[in-house]
Formats: sequence, structure tokens, C-alpha cells
Amino acid sequence: MRALFAWCALLLACGGLLHCAEAAKARHLKWEVGHMFWSPDCEEKVLIGINGQFPGPTIRAKAGDTIVVELKNGLHTEGVVIHWHGVRQIGTPWADGTAAISQCAINPEETFTYRFVVDKPGTYFYHGHYGMQRAAGLYGSLIVDVADGEEEPFKYDGELNLLLSDWYHDSIYNQMVGLSSSPMRWIGEPQSLLINGRGQFNCSLAAAHTPGTKQCTAGGNRHCAPVILPVQPNKTYRLRIASTTSLASLNLAIGNHKLTVVEADGNYVEPFVVDDMDIYSGDSYSVLLTTDQDPSSNYWVSIGVRGRAPKTAPALALLNYRPNRGFKLPAIAPPVTPAWNDTAHSKAFTTQIKARAGTPPPPATSDRRIELLNTQNKLDGHIKWSINNVSLVLPATPYLGSLKLGLKTALAAARPADTFGRAYDVTRPPHNPNTTTGDNVYVLRHNTTVDVVLQNANALQHNVSEVHPWHLHGHDFWVLGYGEGAYRGDAADAARLNLANPPLRNTAVIFPYGWTALRFVADNPGVWAFHCHIEPHLHMGMGVIFAEAIDRVGKVPKEAVSCGATATALMNGDHL
Amino acid sequence: MRALFAWCALLLACGGLLHCAEAAKARHLKWEVGHMFWSPDCEEKVLIGINGQFPGPTIRAKAGDTIVVELKNGLHTEGVVIHWHGVRQIGTPWADGTAAISQCAINPEETFTYRFVVDKPGTYFYHGHYGMQRAAGLYGSLIVDVADGEEEPFKYDGELNLLLSDWYHDSIYNQMVGLSSSPMRWIGEPQSLLINGRGQFNCSLAAAHTPGTKQCTAGGNRHCAPVILPVQPNKTYRLRIASTTSLASLNLAIGNHKLTVVEADGNYVEPFVVDDMDIYSGDSYSVLLTTDQDPSSNYWVSIGVRGRAPKTAPALALLNYRPNRGFKLPAIAPPVTPAWNDTAHSKAFTTQIKARAGTPPPPATSDRRIELLNTQNKLDGHIKWSINNVSLVLPATPYLGSLKLGLKTALAAARPADTFGRAYDVTRPPHNPNTTTGDNVYVLRHNTTVDVVLQNANALQHNVSEVHPWHLHGHDFWVLGYGEGAYRGDAADAARLNLANPPLRNTAVIFPYGWTALRFVADNPGVWAFHCHIEPHLHMGMGVIFAEAIDRVGKVPKEAVSCGATATALMNGDHL
Repeated sequence: MRALFAWCALLLACGGLLHCAEAAKARHLKWEVGHMFWSPDCEEKVLIGINGQFPGPTIRAKAGDTIVVELKNGLHTEGVVIHWHGVRQIGTPWADGTAAISQCAINPEETFTYRFVVDKPGTYFYHGHYGMQRAAGLYGSLIVDVADGEEEPFKYDGELNLLLSDWYHDSIYNQMVGLSSSPMRWIGEPQSLLINGRGQFNCSLAAAHTPGTKQCTAGGNRHCAPVILPVQPNKTYRLRIASTTSLASLNLAIGNHKLTVVEADGNYVEPFVVDDMDIYSGDSYSVLLTTDQDPSSNYWVSIGVRGRAPKTAPALALLNYRPNRGFKLPAIAPPVTPAWNDTAHSKAFTTQIKARAGTPPPPATSDRRIELLNTQNKLDGHIKWSINNVSLVLPATPYLGSLKLGLKTALAAARPADTFGRAYDVTRPPHNPNTTTGDNVYVLRHNTTVDVVLQNANALQHNVSEVHPWHLHGHDFWVLGYGEGAYRGDAADAARLNLANPPLRNTAVIFPYGWTALRFVADNPGVWAFHCHIEPHLHMGMGVIFAEAIDRVGKVPKEAVSCGATATALMNGDHL
Repeated sequence: MRALFAWCALLLACGGLLHCAEAAKARHLKWEVGHMFWSPDCEEKVLIGINGQFPGPTIRAKAGDTIVVELKNGLHTEGVVIHWHGVRQIGTPWADGTAAISQCAINPEETFTYRFVVDKPGTYFYHGHYGMQRAAGLYGSLIVDVADGEEEPFKYDGELNLLLSDWYHDSIYNQMVGLSSSPMRWIGEPQSLLINGRGQFNCSLAAAHTPGTKQCTAGGNRHCAPVILPVQPNKTYRLRIASTTSLASLNLAIGNHKLTVVEADGNYVEPFVVDDMDIYSGDSYSVLLTTDQDPSSNYWVSIGVRGRAPKTAPALALLNYRPNRGFKLPAIAPPVTPAWNDTAHSKAFTTQIKARAGTPPPPATSDRRIELLNTQNKLDGHIKWSINNVSLVLPATPYLGSLKLGLKTALAAARPADTFGRAYDVTRPPHNPNTTTGDNVYVLRHNTTVDVVLQNANALQHNVSEVHPWHLHGHDFWVLGYGEGAYRGDAADAARLNLANPPLRNTAVIFPYGWTALRFVADNPGVWAFHCHIEPHLHMGMGVIFAEAIDRVGKVPKEAVSCGATATALMNGDHL
């Protein structure tokens, strides 16, 4: 009885949206993370799986449900956390799963319980957020259906799930050391692309269509068996697509079929039709597909690399019109991925995304504008990514605990700058490439409206400006607009902003040499990472931290912050 | 002044042996552990180094000194600890550096300070003691000279240091997963043997003497440059030898030269002369060598594998009679390692080791005898090593903290057995190979004399019984004797024991199908590991824990045990 009361109290604390009667909707999961041998692209290596599976188990829930994951760390010497990408964690910032930010890494043999509400239907995923563990395979799908009695604003007959990733044969340990070395050793392009954790290295499922490539043999290895997506003719399917790539920006197309985009990052968008679509790391989408093509044939689903000169073969899956055999080779060749550097094509796709009618519009004005210049820099012979010339280094003690306890050592004395010099020439390599490191913590006042302008620039090498998908924790933001060159904040830039129907998202890209303007309301007390979702870029410092209304954060569970300076303070009698 | 007082108080607490005036002898070291690329045998891989060095820095101290190592963990996602092998840690059991036993693993970016007294001169080393991090290269030498005004009981003109190890090209991550997999994947034999961290893979320095092998080219890679040991003719050198191998038992010989053994594991032994000597993982020795051979030549130092069918080429170094060039090839071929399965040769060496006159003899009788049967077993398709049919699994919370706080969850209800059934047939594979897991904690009463009989047996495969070097933390033990077949504890066995001048050591081997009897006095309150020093065997459960007079353990520093259940208890107001 007392436990039930506590449970209700927790639910009420977690946003106050649920009633006690709904506590039955808690979905309890027991997971153990562990290393295991696996062959995602038919080449064996050690990866991080969950309960012996790769990718990890798919979570399926309904909006309003409470997810409870008892996560045991079965790694031998490594800590672990899991981030629930796209879940805002309203009222539960300690469950966001970001090591050194929202919690201590879970030690080997320890169990930490994540408990949070999935308040919004949509296509999400989860992944490791410590070191580069996401790139070691620690990820899976998290799909939230509308609550009972609610309906999606579009109709479909069936559903297909596509969790996309890229794959390296080198271990993340080697990758991390290489990135931190002087001279740096870049991780290079991935060996394979994976669909639902399966791919094919050094061969093609569609070799018949592509002279000079080796036909993948069927083999008996279920780890790398071709993905077959069974459909009935003349139906409409919802494809849920999410990308947890380490590096690659992707493009998806399905032979002969149009795609109608209806959801992005757990928010409905005004439907629009495309032949192919870009998916950056951290993005999720739902698209509708109607199986209105010749039913005697199967069709290729093709996923290729964009934004960087690709050295990785497209991943292929079979859209299998039943009752054809799953492996029946399609009559027509796989769609060809648009040229990697056709940025205009990418912009055309991205700028088509508008909020679906009924989505709350952004506040008309903001209280603060934070301009973040993205640069590639040098630091004592190492290569770093910096924001306003500071490269992010995370502390040993997670911010959520140290800031909540008001530990003096929690923040560096110097606060990061809200802007960068207007004189900075974004079209050329940095005049002075030297950078510094810092904690990059921006302290946000409760309920203020914050604009963030992400400014891209030239990297260290001439004529190189990369794509960076930035992901915000704890919030969706409105994507107000995109611009070319340097953001000036003048009338011309203001005119580029869409305040009428900007899409709500949690991930937004900056295009080469361009800028992207975002707006969000700091209405979710907690400490939230905001970072480039490219795993090696974050490892090299490409992120900032938003510390939001810490005084309004609820009682942080001790077990979330039982390490470092917080543990010491708590042992000395401090209270959270 | 206050700090000085605290410092003195600590030193007094740590055994009461030192006076305040001697505080100046504290040796402060700042170390950072980190992954780095290195090529110990000219093949590059990622290993764990200290301050950018591999092996880690050599510590040189004088008996009575206090060593203070501020150890920062610079690994990205892994915990770390360092064990000071052979240092008894009298009064400082929290500084023993055993994860899950004496302390919590140090989290990434955290610093833990090891502070302990090296009370006894001798040849020691240090190494990682978490997962299989020792096998990743986390080790170095620790050499303690006699205190000022004291003299060694033998004379020498110079000193040479040989830290021996074996080397695998596969990562310890892959190795750990393989050992824990079903079916198990054994790590196999090492690719190379290393001397002071340097070796040569797939070639020989002495190819001229060994037809069919490839001559190692000089190359410019300092990581794998041949080890050259410069000596002057007609002098006597003290060779300090220690083995931190993951698997291999070694044999060392030097062309044309005799070796006089004078020290084993930091204890003087009665000098004896050999042509070659065995060195098991965990052993250390000092031997005297006189450069009385033809000074116009250099001589090969050869180190080969014993005890397992070797697939690894011997490691070679050059004993360089100055003024010959270091690389001048010796006239005679390297000494040939005795046959791997010539156990009689090994026993002949080992049983020659006696305590030097003046070494305290063991108590004449013991208060308790613990008989530990070493078996290879199966557990749900996994292969394990078990002691009295229980395979060691360490807890998330280190014993030193949980036992000191008297946490109820610290110990499993069932205590491990002090003996095994006399009916067990050690000459055959186990009748029932199934085993179980447990914490294997033996609780020892203060100042009692404990006998341990280590009983070897047949492994899972017929006609296989392996060599296991057992290492005890917190103590030296007297090696009372060795026997063949099953120990019966009868008069015949008692007659095999040497109570007159048994050597004091911290590591003792059990020979195939044999037993080894040890005695020690439980006079050092703490929690001490006792385990097979073969890294994969310990990983597979081959060890026990001695919890000794926990009520007499001094105040455990909070930072040593700030994790798991101990941290929770301390945060809830418990006191250490």
C-alpha cells in the first residue's frame, strides 16, 4: 500500500499528467548489457548487446506509459548508461542517460533503474551515451503508440521498422584512442551500413544489377541475413525510420515507390511526398508508403551515404510483395543515392519539413539568443571540435548532482560566451586554429525562451565544411530556419525565419557554411546535453550543456549521482 | 602544520613503524593511466600505459619509505586499479589495489591516491587488477633497496632489471568475451614474450643460429628494439627478474653463465647456483651473475615457455660485454629452453629454494587447515575454474567496505568449505563436471596460523593437469612443501613438509597432479585475494578471498569504497 502510494506520488511528480489508475501501464523491463561476439555485416567482432540481442530489444509503449528499465551492467570493466533519444524526461532529468551529465555511469555488476514517462507518441530510439559506446552497437528502437482512445492523424494498414546504423570493423577502443592521439587518427568511413543491425560487407545483394561487385551468398549467418520487409499489395504502410549512425548521413529510397513524410522526431509534420529522403544521425521519421506497384515483383530499399565522399556501399533491403518469395530479386536495380555533395537536394528535402497544422507555434520572441560557432581546431597537436572556441570536456562528477548540491567545483569560473566575434570568417580555415577546453555549461532561467543559432564554418582544411546534426536533450525545439554563410542577426536573417509553422524536432542539421536557427522554451528543469550527434565529433568536444532551473529539479535519486564529488558530499551529510 | 600532523598520524596509523622525521621519505608520484598505440613486438595495438610509457615507470624506493601514487584514470569508459604485487600493505589494506575486494575501481577522470609503506627490500612489481587489464600492459617494476645504513646480504657491482611478460595481439576485450562465452574461446598461446616491454614477433634476433627463421631487422621502432644489457667484464651483477605474464610460465638462461639465486618474492633465499631458472607469473627473483666469460663476445639471454606446449618463440636479449657493440651477435647460439613438459626439471629448481639463514621460521603448528581443490569445470556450457567446486565471482561492492560496515548483503549465506571430499580422484577428469559460483570468502581469525594446501587435479580433458602459480595478497607465506597426487594429510604427507627453512614467498606453484602446502599467520587485518596468477584463470574463477580480522581494520578512506552498497550505506549515515 505504501509502495503504491509512493508510486502514485512519483507519477504525479513526473508531470502530474497521470492518475493512479494508470499506474498499471508501467512497462517493466529487465536488461543486461554485455559484450558479445556478433557479425552484423558477416564479419565477426565484439559488440555491446542487450540480453544477448543486437540491436537491443525494441520497446513498444503507449503515450502516457511509464517505462521502467532495470539495467544491469554486465560489461567487465566499463561503465554504461542508456539515453532515451527523443524522450523529454519531463520531471525525470536523472533518467536521461547521459554519463557525466545526468548520472554517473553504472559500474560493472551494478543495476540502475530508469523510470520515465513516454508522454508523446512517435518514433524514438535509445542508445549508449558514454564514450563511443553507441558506435559499439548499444542501441535499439523505442516506439510509442498513441494512447488508448486516441488516433494518429493519418491512416495505415501495417508498420515496418527500420533502425539504421553504420558499422566499423575497428573497435571503439581503438577509435577513441585514435581520435585522442596526436597526430589524430581519424576513424574513416564505415565498412558497412546496417538496417536493423544487419548488413553485408564487401559484397552486394544486388550484384546482378551492379557489375563488378560480388554477390552476397545466402549463408546461414542470421546476424547478417538480408532484411526482408513483407507487405501486401495495395496497402499503406507506416515505415518508422531512425538513424543511430556513428558518422554517416544517410539517404533512403525505395524502388518505384513514393514516400509521404508524416512524422519527424516524434512530432507530426505536414505530409509531403518525396522520392528519397535524407536521414541524419539522431533523426527519426515516419513515412507512409503505398504498395501500388506491380505485385509480381519485389523492390529494393536502398540506403546510401550523403554529405561525405562515400566509401561505403549502400545497404539494401527487400520490400517483399507477398506472396512473392522474400529473396526474389527485384526486376529493377536499387535506387541510386543522390550525389554525396548535392547539398541543394538535401536542403530541398529538409526545408520542406513543416509542422503539421495544430502544432503549437513558437513564442513570437525570445529572451536570449545563444550563437554557437562550430569550428575545427587544434589543441597541443590534437584535433578538436569547438563551440565558440571551447571544446567540451565532461567532468568526473555528473552536473546534475554537483549543480543540485551547489558544489563550488561544479562549474568552471569562466562561463561560455553567448556569441562569437562577428569578424570571424566562416568561409576560411580558422586564422588562429588553437582552441581550449571547457565545460561549456550555459545556465538557463526557468521558462525563458531561448534562441540558438548554430553557425557552421570552414574546417581546418580549405574548402571543407561538414554536415553536423545537432541533438538537444530534454526538449523539442522549433527549427526556425536555415541560412547561408555567416549569420548576422539582421533584418535579412530575420526574414529567413519561419515563425508560422516551423517543425518541432530534437535534431537539426547545419549545412556546410550555413547556419540553423532554433527556438525552445526552457521549461524542463534539468541538465541537458546539446551536441553534434556524430559520435567521433562529440568525442572530440562538439557539444554544450544547458543547465536549466536547477533549483526546480525534483529530488534526484542518490543512486543516479553516487560518484565523484557528489558521492563525497552526500557521505559528508549533504542532501539532494 | 596541521597537514604535517595529519601526515604523521597517518604514518603512525600505518603500522607505527615510522617517526615523523622520516616523513620526508615519502615518494610522491603522479600517474595517469591511459590507452595508447604501442608496438611491443613491432605489431601495433592499443594497450594501457602510464604517463605515456609502457611498461609503466619503475618505482625505486628504500625500505621504510612511503609510496604515494596519485593515480588518475585517463581511460575513457573503464575503471582501473593498481595492485602493488608483493607489498603486504600492513595497516593499509585499502591500498592493495584489487577491484571489488580492497577498493572500488577508480572511475574515468577520477584520481585515487595510493599511500603505503614498502617495509621490506626486494624485487616487486605492480599491475592492474581489474578484469584482465594486466594483460593489456598495465604493469611496471617496483624495486625496494635496503634502508640507509643497512646492507644486502650479498655483494654486487651493478644491477640489471628484467620485467618479463607475454603478449597477445587480440585485445583483452575480445579475450574476456571469449573466455566468458559458451562455447568458450580460449585465448591460446601468446604471440610473443616481452622483456621490459619489448619483443619481436615472427622473426628472431638470432636467426643466424636458427635456420628457417626470419632475421629481425633493426628498424627504427624503439618500442620493439632489442633489449641490450650492458655489463663490464669480471664484475658481479644483480639481475632483478619478475614475471607478469598473462599465461606463460617462463624459463630464463644466459649463454655460458651460471645464475646464483639470492632472493625470491622480496625474501632472501639460501644462495644456490643454476644454469637456468623457472619464473612463473607472479614470481620475482634476484640472481647474481658474474661476467667471467670471454669478454670479446656478447651472450644471449633467452626466455622461453614452460609448462604448456609452446607456440611462442623465446624472447632474446643481449648481455653486452662492454666495450663490444650492443648489437654484436654472440658467437654461440642462445640457450635452449628445457622441454616444456620436463616437470622434473621444474621441481628440481623450485625445491632448491630455501629460506636464507636468519629468516623467521614458521610456527610449528597451525590453527586451521584449508584444503583447496583446483578443478576445471562446466557451468551452463561455460568453462570455469573452481576451488572446492565453487568458481569465484566478485561482487559489485568491494568486500573491504561491505564487511567493515557489516552490510548483510556482503557475504553469501553459505561459507566455502575448508576441505573437499577425500574420495575425489585427482587423476581423472571430474566425475561430475558441473560447478557453481560463489564469493569464496574465508573468514580468518586474527593472529591464527593458517595452513593452505593447494591440490591440483586433472582438468576436463584426460591426461591434462596444468601448472597454476598461486599468489597471496597481504602476506608472505612459508612454502612448506610439495607432494605428488592427492594430499591425504597423513604422516607421509607431514613428512614431506619442511618446517626448518621453508622459503617465505607470496607466490607458489602447484605442479600437475600435485599439491603444495603453505603456512601463514593471519596478522594483517584486511581482505586479501588468493588466486591463480594466470590472468584468464582468475577471470574464469580461480581464486578465493581471505577476510581477516575485519574488526581490526583501521579507518577505511571513504574514497576507496565509494561505490555500490557501501556508498549507499555511507550516504545513509553509516560510518566506516
